[in-house]
Amino acid sequence: MSRLRFDITITLDGYVAGPNQSVEHPLGEGTAMLHEWVHKLRTFREMHGDAGGETGINDDVLREAFENRGATIMGRNMFGGGPGPWSSENPWNGWWGDEPPFHRPVFVLTHFAREPLALGETTFYFVTDGIESALAAAKDAAGSMDVGLGGGASVANQYLAAGLIDEMELHVVPLVLGAGERLFEGVTGLNLEPVRTIEGPGVTHLKYRVAT
Amino acid sequence: MSRLRFDITITLDGYVAGPNQSVEHPLGEGTAMLHEWVHKLRTFREMHGDAGGETGINDDVLREAFENRGATIMGRNMFGGGPGPWSSENPWNGWWGDEPPFHRPVFVLTHFAREPLALGETTFYFVTDGIESALAAAKDAAGSMDVGLGGGASVANQYLAAGLIDEMELHVVPLVLGAGERLFEGVTGLNLEPVRTIEGPGVTHLKYRVAT
Repeated sequence: MSRLRFDITITLDGYVAGPNQSVEHPLGEGTAMLHEWVHKLRTFREMHGDAGGETGINDDVLREAFENRGATIMGRNMFGGGPGPWSSENPWNGWWGDEPPFHRPVFVLTHFAREPLALGETTFYFVTDGIESALAAAKDAAGSMDVGLGGGASVANQYLAAGLIDEMELHVVPLVLGAGERLFEGVTGLNLEPVRTIEGPGVTHLKYRVAT
Repeated sequence: MSRLRFDITITLDGYVAGPNQSVEHPLGEGTAMLHEWVHKLRTFREMHGDAGGETGINDDVLREAFENRGATIMGRNMFGGGPGPWSSENPWNGWWGDEPPFHRPVFVLTHFAREPLALGETTFYFVTDGIESALAAAKDAAGSMDVGLGGGASVANQYLAAGLIDEMELHVVPLVLGAGERLFEGVTGLNLEPVRTIEGPGVTHLKYRVAT
């Protein structure tokens, strides 16, 4: 059965993005180091069409996180924010470029209705009627594969609070940001079972199953 | 050289105590499961004068955390809160009973001056002139051994913010509380180096060195 899986890089003090997000700082200020561990990995570079990159524990974890994903859900900010509502005069196409790294259907939660947008091997579908509708559409598109939840924090917290996530992996980096967007804001009563812990260079990977 | 070492049990969403702390719920509401992993361990039971208890990974980690500790620092609430200022008519002795588990000098940060209090093998010293003074006194008492920082969150965050902690271990339990006292509140700019990760039953132990 198709599951909703979620993985995200998180600081030791619980932030998944810094304060004052902007086009210059899509993940907020002070977060240059947040994804440093992932940007140098072979799997990450492959997804973005680049050669080379590190293999090893962290790369294995990242590869596993993206395995068997038939569709992705994300929030409007992760798609690329930009001025909305979109229109033919205002055709903002996100910040993923002409060949986004997803290569799968992506369902974008937004308040602004819009026709699907095909970029390279990725088609973005814009869902305006809520997280459950997006999940149903994504599972339908994923078939027997799983659905990956991208982010950001706000969308992840909505799915966590609704108890809709089946498996979650936190990539814990040894940073203390002190401000920004928190994972788990507004979330209570999750019943989590540890699946496994993996210690990689500069990051620890904690995987949990959400019990129903 | 004597180091200041700190270890604490923390939920996945960053809380080290629940909301609405009281004499009935010293760690706040909803936290019965927070320390479940530790209460059944042999080392914990030994420290409290009880026989039996589980051995294994978690017990090894706990034993290591208490090794080579020559003194302990804690906040007034962890000592036992109670009505203050204390006096001979108001001789509140904390909630650790006649034989507290420390067996070492304990330095209690408080606004209320008080003569030292000896209970069993533990003597509590009450420090009213701040965290640096308490640390100096504790290091003096510890000699060549380390100083352990107990808690609660407020005291730990003061030491973290001041950059005075040398080593920190987080015992991460798979709970999401949604409210309570957060570790790292008001703390920024810590420069942490991962020391090691250990996965035990029901809890993951993340140890970090604070770089200067």
